Amino acid sequence: MVPVTAPTALRVALLGCGVVGTQVVRLLTEQSADLAARVGAPLELVGVAVRDASAPRDPAVDRALLTEDAEGLVRRADIVIEVMGGIEPARSLLLSAVAAGASVVTANKALLAEDGPTLYRAADEAGVDVYYEAAVAGAIPIVRPVRESLAGDRVRRVLGILNGTTNYVLDQMTTNGLGLDDAVRQAQALGYAEADPTADVEGFDAAAKAAILASLAFHTRVRIDDVSREGISSVTADDVAWAAQTGHVIKLLAICEVTDEGVSARVHPALVPSGHPLATVRGAFNAVFVEADAAGELMFYGRGAGGAPTASAVLGDVVSVARHRVLGGKGPAESHYAQLPIASPQEAVTRYQIRLEVDDRPGVLAQVAQLFAERGVSIEAVRQAPRPAAGDGPAGVAHLVITTHDGTETALAATVAAIEGLDAVQTVTSVLRVEGA
Amino acid sequence: MVPVTAPTALRVALLGCGVVGTQVVRLLTEQSADLAARVGAPLELVGVAVRDASAPRDPAVDRALLTEDAEGLVRRADIVIEVMGGIEPARSLLLSAVAAGASVVTANKALLAEDGPTLYRAADEAGVDVYYEAAVAGAIPIVRPVRESLAGDRVRRVLGILNGTTNYVLDQMTTNGLGLDDAVRQAQALGYAEADPTADVEGFDAAAKAAILASLAFHTRVRIDDVSREGISSVTADDVAWAAQTGHVIKLLAICEVTDEGVSARVHPALVPSGHPLATVRGAFNAVFVEADAAGELMFYGRGAGGAPTASAVLGDVVSVARHRVLGGKGPAESHYAQLPIASPQEAVTRYQIRLEVDDRPGVLAQVAQLFAERGVSIEAVRQAPRPAAGDGPAGVAHLVITTHDGTETALAATVAAIEGLDAVQTVTSVLRVEGA
Repeated sequence: MVPVTAPTALRVALLGCGVVGTQVVRLLTEQSADLAARVGAPLELVGVAVRDASAPRDPAVDRALLTEDAEGLVRRADIVIEVMGGIEPARSLLLSAVAAGASVVTANKALLAEDGPTLYRAADEAGVDVYYEAAVAGAIPIVRPVRESLAGDRVRRVLGILNGTTNYVLDQMTTNGLGLDDAVRQAQALGYAEADPTADVEGFDAAAKAAILASLAFHTRVRIDDVSREGISSVTADDVAWAAQTGHVIKLLAICEVTDEGVSARVHPALVPSGHPLATVRGAFNAVFVEADAAGELMFYGRGAGGAPTASAVLGDVVSVARHRVLGGKGPAESHYAQLPIASPQEAVTRYQIRLEVDDRPGVLAQVAQLFAERGVSIEAVRQAPRPAAGDGPAGVAHLVITTHDGTETALAATVAAIEGLDAVQTVTSVLRVEGA
Repeated sequence: MVPVTAPTALRVALLGCGVVGTQVVRLLTEQSADLAARVGAPLELVGVAVRDASAPRDPAVDRALLTEDAEGLVRRADIVIEVMGGIEPARSLLLSAVAAGASVVTANKALLAEDGPTLYRAADEAGVDVYYEAAVAGAIPIVRPVRESLAGDRVRRVLGILNGTTNYVLDQMTTNGLGLDDAVRQAQALGYAEADPTADVEGFDAAAKAAILASLAFHTRVRIDDVSREGISSVTADDVAWAAQTGHVIKLLAICEVTDEGVSARVHPALVPSGHPLATVRGAFNAVFVEADAAGELMFYGRGAGGAPTASAVLGDVVSVARHRVLGGKGPAESHYAQLPIASPQEAVTRYQIRLEVDDRPGVLAQVAQLFAERGVSIEAVRQAPRPAAGDGPAGVAHLVITTHDGTETALAATVAAIEGLDAVQTVTSVLRVEGA
């Protein structure tokens, strides 16, 4: 397949400039060289439609790009990004964009759950893309995996923690024993919950996302009104405590499934067995658990909201729809444009946990610690475990477990070699790296 | 963008017919109608190249399709699926396929980690696709998310549990206290490990996948020889026990990161804090944890090997490359072709956990149980918790927690209503559904 368009700049219009929109502008600017390499053409932000162009803005946003004429803006764009939210005027603007031949990227779950098919049909007729990864579970890639990666499989069931606010609230109730009201107030204080938390707490937000997910997973139109919904407002501290006693945690789940009766989607609080991968989803994180015939169980986990995570998902979609315009859909197979140097394994920064057996007499720990200090490696913790004398000499044996702070592989390995050379050290039993801390 | 090809059938050739290949044939056959709807054209399997066409095969494979002439087969295909493995003849066959204008889907991690760029460059020159979701982490969509969903973001670090065999072995050592050799023997008995487990145990398999992931994440060519590698053969039961004592679990991790020094990729056993999402990855499952600038932390979890899971990933890629040929890359936005009925929420099958306060006297539990039985709802467990008398009457109060087996929402709700009507029942304190069990 050969490029169908010369790689001139693609004109990008942004509708909305709140928390997400501002981060979209920032990424489009900061990553412009990488984006151009990935797309095969530069992306040019030609305007940002806002309700009030004179309102204060983040300095990342060039005020010269602001316009209150959204309708005019969408008609001079190749790609329209919509992060304004709500049904109107978002719907009309996106339909205008599509009619004018633009591809659309939207994060608008309310619109898609209410009336997505109108937009999808218009896009199909116009032969343009509508992408909406950011509308479900924020930064978590879930639309693309369900729509594309599982396109050769049959999805049976999707269980999702799709609302970070309620997950934070339930997690606080579980781990700190808070009551619902206190947990909601804490979420508000941290900016996880709105002043009016109804959309989150009563499950409306999760229901909109469930409608979109069910539609995708089962190739069937599911609207928000088709989703049965129950929020967390009746969950008590007592419920949470009893859940723990019976080996469960309470989560607000979106459940989409296909059975002999058809497709169903529902949102309600549920007891999840504590060994289930969804039970470990903490704080304001989201996760989507998918059961497919051939793939088996899959889970996707990450940040479901927030400016930068949502903008990341939006930009991924922008690159996809832009590639379609430049390359007829084909991404470059050889995407090795960055060609960064390969770092030596010796430069890798890691932490060590070292177990060693030393003579059980005063001063040994000081000698060992000195060897770390000489090589600039700092010690995070030392544990001394009593151990029966090995019977191989008059002195007892002490078992030390030393965990370091970060250091280069070279410095850490040199330290271990020096320790092995100490008279007082009988054996270095084990050296393991610590990762993910 | 308009279709550039008429929707005539696309000719699909399969190279290799082992465990994965057989499942690919099965899915191509069983899902043919769905696949045609998703692609916009039927997929026709035109041949299956095998070393010995007379060897016994699974009945899912039509013997008339078998051929020993792989070179001839790839020249008469639009899409070539390669699941034979190894460097040659896979590389030559795929280069022939690409030169003849076919798109390629491969699960061959060894080839891609050794010499992927040769294939990618040939595909770019020929203007065809090379997709390889199945080459890393089996059924887990990770190539597509890293290559597409995160295309507008900067990946900083990837931590992966990429080898199910070693994860199973380490998990058995952790949860059942087995020594390494016993755990490996158990993995062999269950078919998770080969008779010669070297490729898994010594980290070669994980290193190949790490090379592919690092190349993708950092847009830089990373070969298997660039990956520093240490297997799990020196991990002892004692190490595992000590890890637990210090709040860690031992995992064989692939670590790909970009620092000021460049890109590095390494595979080694590591202590992972037990609160980290990767620590909860059990058995033969795989998981990939990604840290990106804007998206933050993401994790992808699922089956990393096996015939059906790997075939699911292969078929997802087949649909993508087939769409590119039919629609110039654009997937139909309106993918609602299945249009299954929306089931009534009353038909949903779930389980209830019901807490209630009842008079503390003989016979009450029997009355309650009778109401369940009359509605066909079976009880999984009843716990009775002593609770101080509420002080509102002479009789003591018993607190019951009843968990049901599966039942329809209608039957379960009707049972609860009937229970509420019993004289001996003072309050139904809470009704919660149980999911994911």
